[in-house]
Amino acid sequence: MAGPSLRRLSMAGRRAAILERVSGGEELMREALDASTLESLAELMVECPVGFFGVPLGVATGFVIDGEAVDVPMATEEPSVVAAASHAAGLVAHAGGFTTGAEGNRVTAQVWLEGVGVPGLARLSGGTSSGQPQAVFPVAGPASPDVLNHVDDKKYETGSPLSPDLFARVGQLVDAALPSLVRRGGGFDGADMAAFREPAGLVRIQIHLRVCDAMGANLANTAAEAAAPLLEEVSGGRALARILTNESEGRMATASFRLPVRLLRRAGIAGAEMARRIAVFSAVAAADRARAVTHNKGVMNGVSALALATGNDTRAIEAAVHAHAALTGRYLPLTVYRIEGETLVGEIRLPVPLGTASSTGALHPGARLSLAILGAPSAARLGRIAAALGLAQNLAAMAALVAEGIQAGHMRLHARRTAYLAGARGDLIDEVAGMISREGMVSLDAARRVIESLRRGEP
Amino acid sequence: MAGPSLRRLSMAGRRAAILERVSGGEELMREALDASTLESLAELMVECPVGFFGVPLGVATGFVIDGEAVDVPMATEEPSVVAAASHAAGLVAHAGGFTTGAEGNRVTAQVWLEGVGVPGLARLSGGTSSGQPQAVFPVAGPASPDVLNHVDDKKYETGSPLSPDLFARVGQLVDAALPSLVRRGGGFDGADMAAFREPAGLVRIQIHLRVCDAMGANLANTAAEAAAPLLEEVSGGRALARILTNESEGRMATASFRLPVRLLRRAGIAGAEMARRIAVFSAVAAADRARAVTHNKGVMNGVSALALATGNDTRAIEAAVHAHAALTGRYLPLTVYRIEGETLVGEIRLPVPLGTASSTGALHPGARLSLAILGAPSAARLGRIAAALGLAQNLAAMAALVAEGIQAGHMRLHARRTAYLAGARGDLIDEVAGMISREGMVSLDAARRVIESLRRGEP
Repeated sequence: MAGPSLRRLSMAGRRAAILERVSGGEELMREALDASTLESLAELMVECPVGFFGVPLGVATGFVIDGEAVDVPMATEEPSVVAAASHAAGLVAHAGGFTTGAEGNRVTAQVWLEGVGVPGLARLSGGTSSGQPQAVFPVAGPASPDVLNHVDDKKYETGSPLSPDLFARVGQLVDAALPSLVRRGGGFDGADMAAFREPAGLVRIQIHLRVCDAMGANLANTAAEAAAPLLEEVSGGRALARILTNESEGRMATASFRLPVRLLRRAGIAGAEMARRIAVFSAVAAADRARAVTHNKGVMNGVSALALATGNDTRAIEAAVHAHAALTGRYLPLTVYRIEGETLVGEIRLPVPLGTASSTGALHPGARLSLAILGAPSAARLGRIAAALGLAQNLAAMAALVAEGIQAGHMRLHARRTAYLAGARGDLIDEVAGMISREGMVSLDAARRVIESLRRGEP
Repeated sequence: MAGPSLRRLSMAGRRAAILERVSGGEELMREALDASTLESLAELMVECPVGFFGVPLGVATGFVIDGEAVDVPMATEEPSVVAAASHAAGLVAHAGGFTTGAEGNRVTAQVWLEGVGVPGLARLSGGTSSGQPQAVFPVAGPASPDVLNHVDDKKYETGSPLSPDLFARVGQLVDAALPSLVRRGGGFDGADMAAFREPAGLVRIQIHLRVCDAMGANLANTAAEAAAPLLEEVSGGRALARILTNESEGRMATASFRLPVRLLRRAGIAGAEMARRIAVFSAVAAADRARAVTHNKGVMNGVSALALATGNDTRAIEAAVHAHAALTGRYLPLTVYRIEGETLVGEIRLPVPLGTASSTGALHPGARLSLAILGAPSAARLGRIAAALGLAQNLAAMAALVAEGIQAGHMRLHARRTAYLAGARGDLIDEVAGMISREGMVSLDAARRVIESLRRGEP
């Protein structure tokens, strides 16, 4: 679709090129940039609004994802991020593009019951009335502090089953509370329970939902609130809280590429050497926590910018992704690289709590525009695009880091900002930025001196 | 300053009230909402911009932080978040407000050297030429896979020292590369090293900086790039990469409150019972990882909205905070609650990689406006405000969750959005939202039916 030459167009030219194939795009763009529309929306979206905060919206171009060309809208204030994504996308496109996958469509709600005695536990789990619940492992386990770790470390799939009768009744209640979700093919997708020894009498019931194209937070909260009264009645306990979990291990996306190493040649460094360095530096991220945090932060530069541009909840995906990185007890990088002969293979796997049918996505013309640019994807497809974008962002950062470093790129942009802050406008911005960059003195003082000397007609 | 009654004003009235004491506020607000200004900025800030994405900017009012009244700007698309922060702030203000603290002003850069032999290690650490480096623990340790864990689990403070001579020369190079930071009182703040057994010959040099009011990412990258050639020369190795770490354990903020439990009375539930439930439910977050993720996501609803509104990098603080939550190997909640007699005590501690002197903060009129509303804080003060806001957000969520649940508040706002999407405008929005809420059927279909019946003049 749109090539890298897009970057050299004016904003109007760029818009025209991007929106060429987006039906209704022009009108959405007008709305997305209209202050009075945005102010009215702010009144609907949050409390005590005073206006809006305009985050630059860029478009990363050149992506080929599962054989399809995709332009990726990104809302971010950070320089280099959009260019880096496009650069890596272009490289990977030369080698067939990204291959992606989606695993699961599951969102989980929790109902926390307190004051549940042994008979109540037996009724929840369908155990005998002898007071010995079936498969409620922590209660049957030792009283050490490890009991909590044990519960904590289990993924939800390993929770104990509810009694078949209760399971069915919870499913009915949940589906009845979410009729439009059920119409779209989603709804109740299971439940489990775990009892805590400490605090005593505390029971966690988890309710799983297939959420189709929703992000699912509201659906999960509604499901938890709908099921709680029955769970209270059966257990004899009281619902302490009813709320989704943002842990999103039931909704993952993957992306990978296979890149001939010769395509990685850069700054006079042979492709095979670039690939070796990238593989070594990715191993470093697996060994050093402080490095892994930045490695993953770079992935999220892409993922979070796409989430924001599409009206999704950035805090939700940030929490899910970083918690996933720490799932094993060590904080690990989200991407893996390896060399197979003459090929660099890159892979990513991350949770993607993203929706394309949220009320923010429907209300906000900027979000609608971004979704339209993406070709009105399903939530699963958006998650896959997010995975490809995150991997591209990481590849671009790794390649720059093991070659010339990232300051060269950053400093070009930093110089332009500095020129602007020093008073340069229009064509003068690039001229001043170029001069202070070449002098290696990117500072306000230097920019002001350059502007002054240009005004005095000095060379 | 501005009271809760602010919420009932029109947007213009609210702006006037908020900006009353903000010098230059009106002009900044005009710029912040001006499409052509924002489009020009987008050209300076990112690559391939097509416009901007307008995130609603709300103001949470009623905060008292270390004895000062503060209005807190928040850029977020999520309903309930701003109101919740203001609600909790008001409660805490009745009990003297938040007490906050800041720990450290340190940003860390990493230089990764590869191909360092034993003589090179000795030169780095000032060991004897016998080839036995001083205090380079992993090399001297066993060859098990635990070696990497060992390095990984060390915080930077426990790294080995560089040789005194090299330490001094690195400090000189770093300070020389950052003259304006040094002028502001910041600069080199130490260095350490750790050698890796696997990959063999890999050495991590960390360089620490005091960054004053900067966020510090660019400063750290510049420092790493400035020091790398010397480190290569001394070690005989090659710099694989030179880059900051976003782990921000050297820049923490804390906030706490002490609230008489009677102030927590809510929805017919006695204050003491509310406090008990909050304390129990916070213990749940310490025991259950899936709960902790959502607990912290709620904290970040506040922190990240403040970061965005002030032109800070949301991905950086999200990564730092969630990695901090997982620092012990278990993913833990950021806040702690306990009951002392008739008082609920709440505490938070989190990393705050935030700046108030960044180029985004200087360029973007929205960020400048937010900083002006906050009273032009130092970075340390902004971090403390972020801590108070995060704790307020968490208290509000906990109180709602253990009482009526969060859907009641969410659904009011969801009903308004639904009414809008169904075609209601102006006063009709609230009328339709009220009707579908009372019927308990918040759906587009229901909203359309209500609008239709109102048009036909039915009651």
